[in-house]
Amino acid sequence: MADAQKNRQVLLVSRPEGEASTDNFRLVETPLLPLREGELRVRNHYLSLDPYMRGRMSDAKSYAAPQALNEVMIGGTVGEVVESRNPKFKVGDNVVGMYGWQEYGTSDGTGLYAVDTTHVPLSAYLGPVGMPGVTAWYGLNRIIEPKAGDTVAVSAASGAVGSVVGQLAKAAGCRVIGIAGGAEKCRYVVETLGFDACIDYKAGHLYDELKAAAPDDIDGYFENVGGEVLDAVLPRMNAHGRIALCGMISGYDGKPLPLQAPRILLTQRLKLQGFIVSEHMELWPQALKELGERVATKKLIYRETIAQGLENAPEAFLGLLRGKNFGKQLVKLI
Amino acid sequence: MADAQKNRQVLLVSRPEGEASTDNFRLVETPLLPLREGELRVRNHYLSLDPYMRGRMSDAKSYAAPQALNEVMIGGTVGEVVESRNPKFKVGDNVVGMYGWQEYGTSDGTGLYAVDTTHVPLSAYLGPVGMPGVTAWYGLNRIIEPKAGDTVAVSAASGAVGSVVGQLAKAAGCRVIGIAGGAEKCRYVVETLGFDACIDYKAGHLYDELKAAAPDDIDGYFENVGGEVLDAVLPRMNAHGRIALCGMISGYDGKPLPLQAPRILLTQRLKLQGFIVSEHMELWPQALKELGERVATKKLIYRETIAQGLENAPEAFLGLLRGKNFGKQLVKLI
Repeated sequence: MADAQKNRQVLLVSRPEGEASTDNFRLVETPLLPLREGELRVRNHYLSLDPYMRGRMSDAKSYAAPQALNEVMIGGTVGEVVESRNPKFKVGDNVVGMYGWQEYGTSDGTGLYAVDTTHVPLSAYLGPVGMPGVTAWYGLNRIIEPKAGDTVAVSAASGAVGSVVGQLAKAAGCRVIGIAGGAEKCRYVVETLGFDACIDYKAGHLYDELKAAAPDDIDGYFENVGGEVLDAVLPRMNAHGRIALCGMISGYDGKPLPLQAPRILLTQRLKLQGFIVSEHMELWPQALKELGERVATKKLIYRETIAQGLENAPEAFLGLLRGKNFGKQLVKLI
Repeated sequence: MADAQKNRQVLLVSRPEGEASTDNFRLVETPLLPLREGELRVRNHYLSLDPYMRGRMSDAKSYAAPQALNEVMIGGTVGEVVESRNPKFKVGDNVVGMYGWQEYGTSDGTGLYAVDTTHVPLSAYLGPVGMPGVTAWYGLNRIIEPKAGDTVAVSAASGAVGSVVGQLAKAAGCRVIGIAGGAEKCRYVVETLGFDACIDYKAGHLYDELKAAAPDDIDGYFENVGGEVLDAVLPRMNAHGRIALCGMISGYDGKPLPLQAPRILLTQRLKLQGFIVSEHMELWPQALKELGERVATKKLIYRETIAQGLENAPEAFLGLLRGKNFGKQLVKLI
């Protein structure tokens, strides 16, 4: 009899103090046990790496329980069913799930759903037609609620969420200003994604360039970054502006960053709303349908940075926290 | 022929740099000119002093144009019509208007409205049945939207706005926590206004006392103060909490105060909304009707601090900015 097949997994083994590091993770091999009745097994093809994972590594009060130590890191995955004792799934099905940082997922199928890869590539279900896409859709349509002619700004504009925010806002008839880190990302945001302007916050003139790029000021802002970027945008908001607070990645990996001039929220009568898209599951079908159609018809463009092999997931994740990725950060597992 | 009757007025003559001072104001006497057709004249009985006036003294970007220099300071007034060439108003009418810091108001009646003082004292139309009351009503009902059983907190709890917020929230079935400056104000808030608890922020244990007073944390917060009070409340907000941002008086008279941990807005998915009640005039009739009935039936209790004489208005206003008033700050002009 052959050896039992092996699964490779990445566990969280310690919590970061300050910056996260590769020492917080450990790669282990575990045997794959035979399926029980009702279970199925998926060979994961891609793992999604997302900023929210940094929050789970800490045990500070947040919207979700912290990731347990010495367990497989949480994460979205897409893959193919390779074995099934569950009547709802058959071998060969392409599925989206939350199997985490591992090569195989075994479960009773809860939370797993099959997807059609005829017109939409499998990996896109972790990006524009997955959680990041729905995040963009929700924050834009339910918090910013843009009207044609509004100016909408978005930070991390070349990223998995920001790129979708801007393209949807353009489709809604808005003037769209991106904020991204570096000239290359900014060029992509304008030339490929079709934003009206993109400002390289690393160039150090964010406030002045915002003023030039948004002469009528900003009606809606989709925030992924926080910190000095939010401080620069706030004074450029129009009265009754809406800010969808999706992420504050600039403060994830260390001390919390203050907001310098909160009084503007009052003087401009702004609405600022934090959200997490998993609390709005009732809207996912509508959002995914629209996003899937846009990707299938090439109206929604996206870009991926793909790390090869589970063993490189920690390094890729740390790079994501520093903005080293360009577009959606994935790990190819096969 | 007798001398023309005199009006006394307080003008803004300079803008504060840092703290406002009495030097920013000047008391002048001007003659009262004969009325033209369509005009009326009001002898103002009370002038309202309100924190928003500090904003108008500066020329920073805000929701309203700055107060012009060398003109009568803006302000709400109540008084009696003493002369009328306007068919809509007759001598003896009690009226509410915006005649500013002066003893007499002369106008064509635009923005002026007559009120019934049978069951509601005239001065209350500058407090619980006026702009401060509607401010409380709007922020509570339209932004916080409390449900029975919610915990609602309010800063400047003994003030013209805060006292109404808390009493309306109690009537809506909420647990209500006040924050005020000093033991005397806190005693009044609990014993007279009927709040469940009141914390003296000057005692220096705001965060810990909030935790004790609101064991189920806070669902709705009505903010009049900002600064360290907001910093202490924010970590005690429940998920999906709502913050009505009405004022940030702690930062009005100097440097803007940062918000130390804005990330909580994200992790707790809070909604924070700034507002100014004059942008919601369509709701005033409904709010004033409810507030008037509550005052007339003694279900809504209020307190006034009354300075005597226009010449004392600047000093009283500076005291208001430092929390020296207890309840609604008025100036009696007659």
